[in-house]
Amino acid sequence: MTSPLRMRSLRALSLALAAFVSTFGDAASASPDASERDIAALLTHSAYYWNHGNLDAFMLSYENSPETAYVSSKKVIHGYANIRAHYAEHYGRGGMGVLSFSALSVRPLGADYAVVVAHWHLAMKSGAHPTGIFSLVLHRGPGGWHIITDHSP
Amino acid sequence: MTSPLRMRSLRALSLALAAFVSTFGDAASASPDASERDIAALLTHSAYYWNHGNLDAFMLSYENSPETAYVSSKKVIHGYANIRAHYAEHYGRGGMGVLSFSALSVRPLGADYAVVVAHWHLAMKSGAHPTGIFSLVLHRGPGGWHIITDHSP
Repeated sequence: MTSPLRMRSLRALSLALAAFVSTFGDAASASPDASERDIAALLTHSAYYWNHGNLDAFMLSYENSPETAYVSSKKVIHGYANIRAHYAEHYGRGGMGVLSFSALSVRPLGADYAVVVAHWHLAMKSGAHPTGIFSLVLHRGPGGWHIITDHSP
Repeated sequence: MTSPLRMRSLRALSLALAAFVSTFGDAASASPDASERDIAALLTHSAYYWNHGNLDAFMLSYENSPETAYVSSKKVIHGYANIRAHYAEHYGRGGMGVLSFSALSVRPLGADYAVVVAHWHLAMKSGAHPTGIFSLVLHRGPGGWHIITDHSP
């Protein structure tokens, strides 16, 4: 079982990403640049909702499908509903610290898929600064980009 | 820096996979079933060469590109040559134990990409049985399927 601290730090991407995203993209665009911009915007929104304890809005970053997968260090959770239930166990508690990420890398996989790798950083009230790396696979459907595989060990 | 033990255990997929692969696929086929079969065969071959200390053959499972990425728990290594150099530091030492994996999941991402999630298991001479989860993104090019992102924390 992943600890609440690790769960939060892995998923709570910082609003610092907003500095990376100069403009929010047109979701209908399929160019690599537009895809990167749209995906960065998705992650910015995801982090915003995470940091504000809005689980329903946070979950909008995932594709609502039984195939969506969350991979932790210990287990694989299949399905949007099960991922939501997993987050609900840990979501919204205090003391989450200040979160940011760096080295965002977006690689298109054709027009409608992409893989993202990034570092996360967490500045805790205690002075601790845990850090790590996560990877995401995203799919662009009629409703825009969504996470279909989240590997956050 | 990932420990040699962890490096080995993550990459050295067991020949037990061979039982999963009843027949080796036609690399030119693009059906989901054929893709899954071909990818499983690639991983079987990769494990075989790893377990026999053949780094050059093992590396054939990766796409020979500066974009290919290896994601460990601590860092991201970009480029085929750098990934090979990283493995060369740790490859081929004794005492690797008996390796296997389970819960192989292959999800096609269009016709020419796929994401794979699987558990790895290692039975050491000491009696220890470390285990974990890795994810791969693969690309099907003219030369067949190859790993383009390997997240093995």
